[in-house]
Amino acid sequence: MLGNDPILLTPGPLTTSPTTREAMLRDWGSWDAAFNRITQSVCNDLVDIAHGRDDYVCVPLQGSGTFAVEAALGTLVPRDGCVLVPNNGAYCARIVRILQRLSIACVELPLREDEPVTVAALEQALAREPRITHVAQVHLETSAGLLNPLDEIAALCKRHGKSLIVDAMSSFGALPIDLRTGGIDALVSASGKCLEGVPGMGFVIVKRDVLDASEGRSRSLALDLYDQYAYMKKTTQWRFTPPTHVVAALRRALDTFFSEGGQRARGARYARNCATLIDGMQALGFRTFLCADAQAPVIVTFHAPRDAKWNFAEFYAAVRDAGYVLYPGKLTQVETFRVGCIGAIDVNEMHNAVAAIGRTLERLGIRVR
Amino acid sequence: MLGNDPILLTPGPLTTSPTTREAMLRDWGSWDAAFNRITQSVCNDLVDIAHGRDDYVCVPLQGSGTFAVEAALGTLVPRDGCVLVPNNGAYCARIVRILQRLSIACVELPLREDEPVTVAALEQALAREPRITHVAQVHLETSAGLLNPLDEIAALCKRHGKSLIVDAMSSFGALPIDLRTGGIDALVSASGKCLEGVPGMGFVIVKRDVLDASEGRSRSLALDLYDQYAYMKKTTQWRFTPPTHVVAALRRALDTFFSEGGQRARGARYARNCATLIDGMQALGFRTFLCADAQAPVIVTFHAPRDAKWNFAEFYAAVRDAGYVLYPGKLTQVETFRVGCIGAIDVNEMHNAVAAIGRTLERLGIRVR
Ligand SMILES: Cc1ncc(COP(=O)(O)O)c(C=O)c1O
Ligand SMILES: Cc1ncc(COP(=O)(O)O)c(C=O)c1O
Repeated sequence: MLGNDPILLTPGPLTTSPTTREAMLRDWGSWDAAFNRITQSVCNDLVDIAHGRDDYVCVPLQGSGTFAVEAALGTLVPRDGCVLVPNNGAYCARIVRILQRLSIACVELPLREDEPVTVAALEQALAREPRITHVAQVHLETSAGLLNPLDEIAALCKRHGKSLIVDAMSSFGALPIDLRTGGIDALVSASGKCLEGVPGMGFVIVKRDVLDASEGRSRSLALDLYDQYAYMKKTTQWRFTPPTHVVAALRRALDTFFSEGGQRARGARYARNCATLIDGMQALGFRTFLCADAQAPVIVTFHAPRDAKWNFAEFYAAVRDAGYVLYPGKLTQVETFRVGCIGAIDVNEMHNAVAAIGRTLERLGIRVR
Repeated sequence: MLGNDPILLTPGPLTTSPTTREAMLRDWGSWDAAFNRITQSVCNDLVDIAHGRDDYVCVPLQGSGTFAVEAALGTLVPRDGCVLVPNNGAYCARIVRILQRLSIACVELPLREDEPVTVAALEQALAREPRITHVAQVHLETSAGLLNPLDEIAALCKRHGKSLIVDAMSSFGALPIDLRTGGIDALVSASGKCLEGVPGMGFVIVKRDVLDASEGRSRSLALDLYDQYAYMKKTTQWRFTPPTHVVAALRRALDTFFSEGGQRARGARYARNCATLIDGMQALGFRTFLCADAQAPVIVTFHAPRDAKWNFAEFYAAVRDAGYVLYPGKLTQVETFRVGCIGAIDVNEMHNAVAAIGRTLERLGIRVR
């Protein structure tokens, strides 16, 4: 049965390894020391992956990644703060929506969906709005698969004394992030992305002194990052029932991550997957939405064929029947679709996926060029 | 290895069946129709269990049960509402904390931890505070294992025109709840309690017209129940990445639930477990904290032995080594511990657990009487 499951070429949930899923075949008590040691080791490893050992702590949070993003913003930004949000996609726009709900002042820096943030544009925005205290930056805008230049942005925030909160949802674990170089106050990601765990848990890696200063600020109990941290520090336990099986799977996925060679190896595998995918799709006639410089090796946006016969739902269903789950586009202006290259998959799956896509086009009589 | 896992006698996470856990051996795409049919069928079944078919909808939410409680309160209670909270334990107190964070006015009705709410006390509270618009009632206060008389409370709310929001976290699926009799606007529970799924997802079963009237009210994006509902209705998908494996496990757990005979059979099995536990523990000399009338068949609070040698941590560890995970007390005044009788366990496990507890007492030389 398992052999027949489709491969997910999606940005999370994604295809996990059988050994990761098998870690869920056991129940854990949430009060039990053995489980809480797992949580602790997961958190330590997550901090290590970002090289944040001495100054940063990792606070896990139940729920999807967005819950952790909202918790970080609602806990770390003071009521009278003002957040600059460079906006080149749907996940940036979501941060704006969250800030509006939280009644936190926010300045948007509008960009095209294929246009990475530049330091010059940020400098200008900061100069225009001196009341800005924070920058909320999406590292890898999954909407198009776009990479923003995090190191440069962090250096700029450090220079200007702005607090930087990074949504690293779809980059953490695959792309290099080094907290030692400074400038980043908090980093948000989740279990079910490039770490190749199953979805159900987010986490925030945050500077200890920034978190310590945020007591009593959150207007939400469930999304109070400080409270979660303080309770866990005191008791070693999660504040509310943890997603025990998701945590156990993440522990197993991290074991695999390290045994494969950590972030560099993960990033290299995804880069090979991505190159194989783009080469193969270009040979079929597809064009990528992003130029190579802006393309992160995580998910690739392709222009939909102009052929009148093109219908994404039909194409999706046919490729799925061939064993590969694609992802719809998430852009506002142009018709596109996306193919992920992350998860427990390698170049073989990418070759096979491209072949399946090619056969499907033929069968449906769709011309790409 | 699996055979050696301890049995969880805890109120969730609890011991699930192997078949439920095996449902997590497969990955699902969150955009995929097959997965979204699972979500839909889970939601339909949850509404059915509470007999709410025509007038109620079920909105699932990522995260632990508390996230769903906060989402229900923050979405359904208007800014100028005022919530009466009968308080006989820690989960009632948590509702008060949530309301304070949300800046929603709240009136507490203080009760002892062994004292169920009465209609008379509620009537008085309503008469004293005419500004009360809502009642937030914990059905089964898991702190002590106490049952509050939900039917009477619902009838009273109906009579007085108050909106009733019920935290049925540890009762849903095991105790009868019939929405057809009226009076209940919303019912909150989670995947990992009496339905015997794994933890990671909460849900709110809510009157459709009450939910429809709540658009734009939530100050949180992640915990906006209306938004989650509206998006799911439009797209059949979850708004943010769903905990796919948790949802698949809940689907499997619900199949088992129905094949075993539904709520009545589940409640009957737990009642047998509970009676076996209490009989056995009383034979060892333990006394229950609650009188029989107030005791729900879900989790039982026992007084700790007075023996100077008693040390819960040591006792817990020894009983765990014997294969059973107990739960600490959660009461403010007296020293107690708790034993759950829910999960994929029957009277055999309860007999064996009691025997293990007896042997442990002997080995540690603890006198109960
Ligand atoms: C960059 C980014 N931010 C936020 C999210 C939201 O995460 P979730 O869907 O787990 O809430 C995603 C999801 O893919 C993402 O890619
Ligand atoms: C009655 C009640 N309410 C709320 C909760 C909180 O649920 P969670 O721990 O999943 O957040 C619980 C947990 O056991 C409960 O028993």
